[in-house]
Amino acid sequence: MASLDPGIGEKFSQRTQRAINHDGSFNVRRRGGPPIHDPYQRLILMPWGRFFTEVGVLFLLLNAAFALAYMALGLENLPGVAAPHGWVQDFLSALFFSVQTFTSVGYGHVYPGSNGAGALSSLEALVGVLTFALATGLLYGRFSRPTARILFSRVAIVSRQPNGQPCLQFRVANRRANILIELTAQVIVKFTDAATKNISYAALPLERDAVSFLPLTWTLVHDLGPGSPLHGLQAADYAARDVEIIVMLKSYDDTFAQDVYSRYSYIPSEIAWHRRFRRAYDVASDGIAEVNLDALDDTEELS
Amino acid sequence: MASLDPGIGEKFSQRTQRAINHDGSFNVRRRGGPPIHDPYQRLILMPWGRFFTEVGVLFLLLNAAFALAYMALGLENLPGVAAPHGWVQDFLSALFFSVQTFTSVGYGHVYPGSNGAGALSSLEALVGVLTFALATGLLYGRFSRPTARILFSRVAIVSRQPNGQPCLQFRVANRRANILIELTAQVIVKFTDAATKNISYAALPLERDAVSFLPLTWTLVHDLGPGSPLHGLQAADYAARDVEIIVMLKSYDDTFAQDVYSRYSYIPSEIAWHRRFRRAYDVASDGIAEVNLDALDDTEELS
Amino acid sequence: MASLDPGIGEKFSQRTQRAINHDGSFNVRRRGGPPIHDPYQRLILMPWGRFFTEVGVLFLLLNAAFALAYMALGLENLPGVAAPHGWVQDFLSALFFSVQTFTSVGYGHVYPGSNGAGALSSLEALVGVLTFALATGLLYGRFSRPTARILFSRVAIVSRQPNGQPCLQFRVANRRANILIELTAQVIVKFTDAATKNISYAALPLERDAVSFLPLTWTLVHDLGPGSPLHGLQAADYAARDVEIIVMLKSYDDTFAQDVYSRYSYIPSEIAWHRRFRRAYDVASDGIAEVNLDALDDTEELS
Amino acid sequence: MASLDPGIGEKFSQRTQRAINHDGSFNVRRRGGPPIHDPYQRLILMPWGRFFTEVGVLFLLLNAAFALAYMALGLENLPGVAAPHGWVQDFLSALFFSVQTFTSVGYGHVYPGSNGAGALSSLEALVGVLTFALATGLLYGRFSRPTARILFSRVAIVSRQPNGQPCLQFRVANRRANILIELTAQVIVKFTDAATKNISYAALPLERDAVSFLPLTWTLVHDLGPGSPLHGLQAADYAARDVEIIVMLKSYDDTFAQDVYSRYSYIPSEIAWHRRFRRAYDVASDGIAEVNLDALDDTEELS
Repeated sequence: MASLDPGIGEKFSQRTQRAINHDGSFNVRRRGGPPIHDPYQRLILMPWGRFFTEVGVLFLLLNAAFALAYMALGLENLPGVAAPHGWVQDFLSALFFSVQTFTSVGYGHVYPGSNGAGALSSLEALVGVLTFALATGLLYGRFSRPTARILFSRVAIVSRQPNGQPCLQFRVANRRANILIELTAQVIVKFTDAATKNISYAALPLERDAVSFLPLTWTLVHDLGPGSPLHGLQAADYAARDVEIIVMLKSYDDTFAQDVYSRYSYIPSEIAWHRRFRRAYDVASDGIAEVNLDALDDTEELS
Repeated sequence: MASLDPGIGEKFSQRTQRAINHDGSFNVRRRGGPPIHDPYQRLILMPWGRFFTEVGVLFLLLNAAFALAYMALGLENLPGVAAPHGWVQDFLSALFFSVQTFTSVGYGHVYPGSNGAGALSSLEALVGVLTFALATGLLYGRFSRPTARILFSRVAIVSRQPNGQPCLQFRVANRRANILIELTAQVIVKFTDAATKNISYAALPLERDAVSFLPLTWTLVHDLGPGSPLHGLQAADYAARDVEIIVMLKSYDDTFAQDVYSRYSYIPSEIAWHRRFRRAYDVASDGIAEVNLDALDDTEELS
Repeated sequence: MASLDPGIGEKFSQRTQRAINHDGSFNVRRRGGPPIHDPYQRLILMPWGRFFTEVGVLFLLLNAAFALAYMALGLENLPGVAAPHGWVQDFLSALFFSVQTFTSVGYGHVYPGSNGAGALSSLEALVGVLTFALATGLLYGRFSRPTARILFSRVAIVSRQPNGQPCLQFRVANRRANILIELTAQVIVKFTDAATKNISYAALPLERDAVSFLPLTWTLVHDLGPGSPLHGLQAADYAARDVEIIVMLKSYDDTFAQDVYSRYSYIPSEIAWHRRFRRAYDVASDGIAEVNLDALDDTEELS
Repeated sequence: MASLDPGIGEKFSQRTQRAINHDGSFNVRRRGGPPIHDPYQRLILMPWGRFFTEVGVLFLLLNAAFALAYMALGLENLPGVAAPHGWVQDFLSALFFSVQTFTSVGYGHVYPGSNGAGALSSLEALVGVLTFALATGLLYGRFSRPTARILFSRVAIVSRQPNGQPCLQFRVANRRANILIELTAQVIVKFTDAATKNISYAALPLERDAVSFLPLTWTLVHDLGPGSPLHGLQAADYAARDVEIIVMLKSYDDTFAQDVYSRYSYIPSEIAWHRRFRRAYDVASDGIAEVNLDALDDTEELS
């Protein structure tokens, strides 16, 4: 029988932590390999604060380097700079001229007064416009990267279907106001063998694994009947086998016009037993449907 | 039997309005949820007028802030500014210098004449070029977002097929002159139970649910024979059950090189009985096919 | 039986011209419909020469408008402009200052010397940078639009297979040096009824309708045996029925990382009978395969 | 039986080199064909060093051309340029002014002092901003082009499965830290007939041809049992038949939000017999899985 390992590994020498973090990343570290420079990926994925800090630092360093070059040339090549006032003032004067060239402001109260300064400032002007061309692309790349903001219920629940059968459920909603289309979900369970620490995977079929839209909430239901790999297991068994319910969700984002993928997982401490979800949407008095994202986690004891 | 709910909800405490608006949006309001900031989505989706207004206001605010900073520093740091003429004139002078720095025009009749002004104007020049880098990305993102401009006939009709069977029909055409490829359509009907207000959905299979191209018009036909969930229903039944015919159309846009999705719906007041569509295209005298978009809604009484 | 109309129409009052032009566009004109403004699509699709002409004209018009505004304000607001020399010289002076502001060059030998000129030039600087932000997006959009440059053989041929059966063949190659992946082809034939002018379509199945790559050439083969809608037809029949062989080709472009679609069609005058293709690739002396695009149309008489 | 040629050719007059190079490109040369200008593709695909060199050279040439135009006009039209000092100094002065206009720095110590210089510098400013608009698009296009950095094991191995059957194996890992989703692999073998030099292809089915993720390593296994086209062949047979194992790998890149394709191939000298892979991942003491890319090629003798 073909393995159902989704690519997360089956043989480890000891217990592993959860495979999927709550932000959808994998609990994996990487070592070795040929050195790889992915400045674009790095600059696209880093947080905004760090991005602007790196841009600012790079801007300062580049301009400081050009300022030092102007100083090496001699500030007498930059008419308009006040008479020498020591290293610090000279550096600042050269730095300000450099920034005015780099950003193409070019007030002109200081200007290149020799061939050397003309050539150096020409080079800097080119470097400057190309640098901001790069920054433009990076900013667009950061902004336009489609990222689904699927909100998963913090707990999965073991509930009961209308026919009395137990089932595993969790809910999702769209954190954003934009439109998600053609959602499909796939759920697998990861077991760890208590003795060998070997890991095995099994699919958890859903009563319904696709919806056309997600304007409200979507409750995903896995039947815990005899066909389920979780059939008959109790909370203690979940813990003993290190159960991890791994959810993969694909959708099409109408704003970005691209497919987006989300991942989430539930470990035993995030599974509530004998509960059911309260409905998180209803219709307002004007006949318009209304979804309450704050109620996504609302559950109640099964009667 | 698995529910056919496309994700629009099945249980509401009272009658709901139509699920899909004519612009393809959902008739759903959202409340609660973790706060989410999607400036990109907001700036991409807002109308052009509002976009340019927000850009203009932000431009003014940023430059006013820098102008106040230059004033706090003292306008004597900006040689070329006329002697002080009161708060308003000073603010305007500082504002104009700020704009000249922010946009990197830098005429230079006013220029930073001290280290403080040099540093502040350097910062402003950087903020300025980055702001316009952002604006560049936003403008491109707004322009390049693929949006299908599928024109749906304003009414669906209940007509008769060549074999005498009744059928439900509506037509679509491409409002744009660009090329749409590989169109696929899916139609479902939404019923509301008059007593419980519960909602149910059923698929309406089409005689043909895909075409390769859409240069002319495409008439979508659902057979109302015994196999249809609408079989035997009359206009009054449509109204009593709050019928909503929901259309989902997917196509590939050859200009944007991306899939685009359209949605539309017909409610009972938008369904005409006993009519047929007049052909909306023909061939001109030079042998070239010609489509008349104004005739998309042209119907005539069934004989 | 469901129609095989790919969306090009079946009922016309007289003979139509070919449905697909050699550049892949449809032979269709459009009339009426709600007015639709697609400046992006228009600016993306127009030829480069026209694009730069429109950009140049818009640039001139915008700057002329600002120049007139500066003149209305009075050129005494622009210190540095020479004393008045008549309308033409004044306009030129204002125009040059306008361009220097619009493009953010801002030499500064002319500068805004009043609040009115300061405000107007601030507005123009903003309009200027936003205009070039737009131009940046448009240039990128034009450049990055994936367009397959599939080269179709100018003729389709009626040839003979190894087993003696007649077959219809045509060849394609990639005009570009980039890599096309996962090509799939679909071929249909369009017949016109000589009497009614009604049009019908039929699929022409291919011996092989997909290849993984297209580094060399790909010969598409339709078996003209008993199963073919063209079985037994001769050249005269092709002409009498206005046969048009319509080819739809989809591939994935590894440079643009996007699907690209090509269309082509063969009419009776573009079909050669009783010929076979000469091989258009071979291996060079260093063991490297070599494709000769000039030989794509090379055919020889069947022996 | 339909050919399995993936599009790489079947009939050659002599032995060919490997079809797929290690960088995924095809071992194919192209000749003839209508001339095609793909500046975008060329500029997107060239190495960074060459890209910046071409940008620099173009920048110099354009500015030199404008410098010559200013000289033809007469440098007396550019007040601020020092008195004539011979051709070289005049050219440099004009060049520096040109760069200051092209990059929109515009210090203003030199400025256009006549209508001719005003018009020429206006044109140059427009050309300059459009050129940098183009450069912005190109830089973004280069950066944002999704390229999978799949690391293939340098050797494929002939190993033994738990059931004792021989199998062909190779491994892949993701060189990057980003997330690859929904990987699918297809493997074919290319044989060359020693006598006719004709080439034939056969599919090599995998025990598992898809994984959901690739955070660790993925070992692809082809069963060399009776069903395999390689069944019973020894190393000498591989060499005699010029075996080439061709791997096609498709995945979805979560950073670029696009599908990416990788190709690789193994020739007889890159196939090791009677070995097995050592596991390249394990769990660290903190329970986090750890993959060691340097161990991707680690194999050991079969016992």
